[in-house]
Amino acid sequence: MTAHFTSTIEFQMSLLLFVALAGHLLAARINQSAVIGEILVGLLIGPSLLGLITYTDFVRSVAQLGAVILLFVIGLEFKVKDIFNLRYGLIALVGVIVPWVGGYVTAKAFGFSFDNAIFTGTALTATSIAITANVLEEMGKLQTPAAKAIIGAAVIDDVLALLVLSLSKQIVTGTFSVLDIIMPIVKAGLFLIIGIYVGQKFLSQMVERLDQTSLSKKYPEFVFIFAMMFAFLYAMVAELMHLSAIVGAFIAGISLGGVVIRHGKDYKEGAEYLRIIFASIFFVSLGVLVDIHVVTATVIWFLIALTLVGILTKFVGCFLPARGQGLSFRDSVIVGFGMSPRGEVAMIVGLIGLNQNLITQEIYAAIIFMSLITTIITPIILRWLYK
Amino acid sequence: MTAHFTSTIEFQMSLLLFVALAGHLLAARINQSAVIGEILVGLLIGPSLLGLITYTDFVRSVAQLGAVILLFVIGLEFKVKDIFNLRYGLIALVGVIVPWVGGYVTAKAFGFSFDNAIFTGTALTATSIAITANVLEEMGKLQTPAAKAIIGAAVIDDVLALLVLSLSKQIVTGTFSVLDIIMPIVKAGLFLIIGIYVGQKFLSQMVERLDQTSLSKKYPEFVFIFAMMFAFLYAMVAELMHLSAIVGAFIAGISLGGVVIRHGKDYKEGAEYLRIIFASIFFVSLGVLVDIHVVTATVIWFLIALTLVGILTKFVGCFLPARGQGLSFRDSVIVGFGMSPRGEVAMIVGLIGLNQNLITQEIYAAIIFMSLITTIITPIILRWLYK
Repeated sequence: MTAHFTSTIEFQMSLLLFVALAGHLLAARINQSAVIGEILVGLLIGPSLLGLITYTDFVRSVAQLGAVILLFVIGLEFKVKDIFNLRYGLIALVGVIVPWVGGYVTAKAFGFSFDNAIFTGTALTATSIAITANVLEEMGKLQTPAAKAIIGAAVIDDVLALLVLSLSKQIVTGTFSVLDIIMPIVKAGLFLIIGIYVGQKFLSQMVERLDQTSLSKKYPEFVFIFAMMFAFLYAMVAELMHLSAIVGAFIAGISLGGVVIRHGKDYKEGAEYLRIIFASIFFVSLGVLVDIHVVTATVIWFLIALTLVGILTKFVGCFLPARGQGLSFRDSVIVGFGMSPRGEVAMIVGLIGLNQNLITQEIYAAIIFMSLITTIITPIILRWLYK
Repeated sequence: MTAHFTSTIEFQMSLLLFVALAGHLLAARINQSAVIGEILVGLLIGPSLLGLITYTDFVRSVAQLGAVILLFVIGLEFKVKDIFNLRYGLIALVGVIVPWVGGYVTAKAFGFSFDNAIFTGTALTATSIAITANVLEEMGKLQTPAAKAIIGAAVIDDVLALLVLSLSKQIVTGTFSVLDIIMPIVKAGLFLIIGIYVGQKFLSQMVERLDQTSLSKKYPEFVFIFAMMFAFLYAMVAELMHLSAIVGAFIAGISLGGVVIRHGKDYKEGAEYLRIIFASIFFVSLGVLVDIHVVTATVIWFLIALTLVGILTKFVGCFLPARGQGLSFRDSVIVGFGMSPRGEVAMIVGLIGLNQNLITQEIYAAIIFMSLITTIITPIILRWLYK
C-alpha cells in the first residue's frame, strides 16, 4: 500500500519522537537545555551524518505546527502591556540596525559583492524568539524583566526585519519604491494593532461566553478546538501580512491568556500537551534542516567570522539600549545574548536569497551555520548567566 | 515567501479546525454525534461543494496522525483479554465472508465482470473501527459487552480483510500461490502476538520505571513523548506487516493502558488532548476525501444497492455469531450495526483497485459512497439503539 516504509508518516513521527527522547538524554548528560540535545541529535540523524531522515514536506509541516503551538503557549503567559512598549521597540531597532551593518561589512571584507553583502546583513537581523523563550520557560524565568524585554523586542524585531528584507530586496534588484517599503510595514503594524485589539476586546470574551454555553457542557472539547483554531488563524493572517506565522500565534496567545475556563476542557493545559510533542519535533527539525556538507574549506573562515559578528552585533545592539534604559548590568547582558539566536528565520531568509540568486552558495552555507550555532550557543550562555 | 496562502499549513489547520467547530454546532442542532457533523461539514467545504480545501498531502498526513492517536487513546481503555478471543474471531470471520460474497453477487447482478465483482466484495469486508469506537466512547458505552465484541471483532477483521485482499488480487491477476496467501497472515499474526507480548511484558514496565527515574523528574514530558513514540512505532510496524497503522496504535494503547504515572506528565490526558484536535481533523478529512461529482446517473442504482448490501451483509454476518454466542438480542443488533462503517479502509481499497485497473470508475464511485454512507448512518443507528 505504501512506498518505502521510511516515507510513511508513522516512521517519521516515531523517529522524530525517538530523537526528541535521545535529545533529552543527551541534554541531561551534558546538563544543558533539552532544546540543545534535540537539535544536536537531529543533526546526527539528518542528512549531515546518518541520513536516516531528510527535511521532507511532512517534517517541515509538523515542525511548523510545533513552532506555532510553541509561541501560542508562550503567548498565554504574557499580557499585552508586558510586551509592547517603546523601550522594547528601541532595543529591537538598534538590535536590527547594528547586525545589518555588521553583516554587510563582514561580507564586503571577505570580498563578496555589494548585493551579497546587503543580503548577508539582512539574514543577521531577525531574532528567532522560539529558542530563547523556550529556554527561559524551561528555567522558570519567563516573568523576569530581562525575559519580558527579550520577548517584546523579539516580536517587534520581526516587524523591523521584514522592513529590512523588503528594503534589501529593492536595493539589490534596483526597483526602489517608497510605497513598496512603507506598505509591508503598514500592513504588519495594522495586523499587530487590530489583531491585539480584536483579540483582547472580542475573542477572549467570546471564549469566556462559549465556555458558559450548553454547547461547551455537551462538548467539553469545543473551547479547546476554538482556541487552537484561533491560534492558527492568527498565524495565517500574520503570514499574509508577511510577518512570521509564529508572531501571529503569539498574539493569539496573549489575547487568550487571561481567560479562565470553568466548564470546557482547559485549553491552556491542552495546548501545553500539544507543545510537548510538536515543539520537540520543531527543535529536532532545526538539526535535520542543516546539511553539514555545505561547509567546505573555503567557507569555514567566513562562517566563523559571520557567526562571531552575528553574536557580537546583536549583543551590542541590544545590550546598549537595555542598559541605557536602566536595566541592571546582568539583565542587560542577558538581553544581549538572549536576542542572539537566529534559528529558522535566518535559514528561511537564506533560502529566499539562494532561490532568487541574490546570494552565493558560500553565503548560504555560512548563514545556515551561523543560525545553527547562535541557536545552540544561546541556551548554554543563558543557563550560565542565570546560575 | 509562500505561494497562494490557501496552501499554507496555517490556512489549512485553521480551516479544518473551523470546520470541526461547525461540525459540532451542526451535530448539536440535529442531535447527533459530533463525528457526523464533522464529516458533513467536511463534505460541504471539500471538492464536492464549496471547494475551499482539497485532500492535500498535508490534510492526509494530519488526518493520519489523528487516526493513529484516536486508536491509541481508545486502546488505553482496554485490556488484552477484553479484545482477543475466539468468540470475537468468529464474529469477525463470518462478518468478513458474508459481505465478500454479498458484494460479489451484487456487482455480478449489475453486469460487472468477474474481476470487478471480486474486488467489490473485497471493499465490503473491512470494518473501520475508528468511527464506531469514537461514537461508543462519546456515549460512554465503551465498556459494555457489545462494545467489546465490536472492538475485538473489528481488530481481527482487519487481519482477515488483509487475507481477502491478498486472495482477491491473486484470483484477479491469476498468480495464485499458497505462500503469497499464507505469508501476510503469518506476518500479521506474528505482529499481533509479539507486539502484545512485548508491550505487556516489557514496554509497560519500562514506562513505569522511566516514570520513577530522575530523568522523568527533571523532564516531566519525557514519559509522554515516550508513550507517543511507542504509539507511532507500533503503527509503523503494523503497516510494515500490511495491517492498518491504526491497529498497531491500538495495540500500543492496550499495552500502556494499565500503567499509572506518578511523576511525569500524564500521557493518557496528553493523548486525549492530542486526540481532540487531530481526530476531529481526521473526521473532517473523511468528508473532504469524497468528491460527490463521481456520482453520475449510471452509478446511482448500483451505489444504493451496494450500500444496502454492505449494511445488511455485515449485519447478518455479525449478528448471527453474536446471538449464537449468547449475547442478548439487543446487544447482537448493536454488534451487527456497529460493525457496519467501512470508512477510510474501503476508500483505500477502492483507490488501490482503481490505480491498478482492477475496478472501473463506476465501482470506485460506488465504493466511496458506500463507505461514506455506512460511516454516517452507523452513529445515527447506534445512538437510536442505545436510547
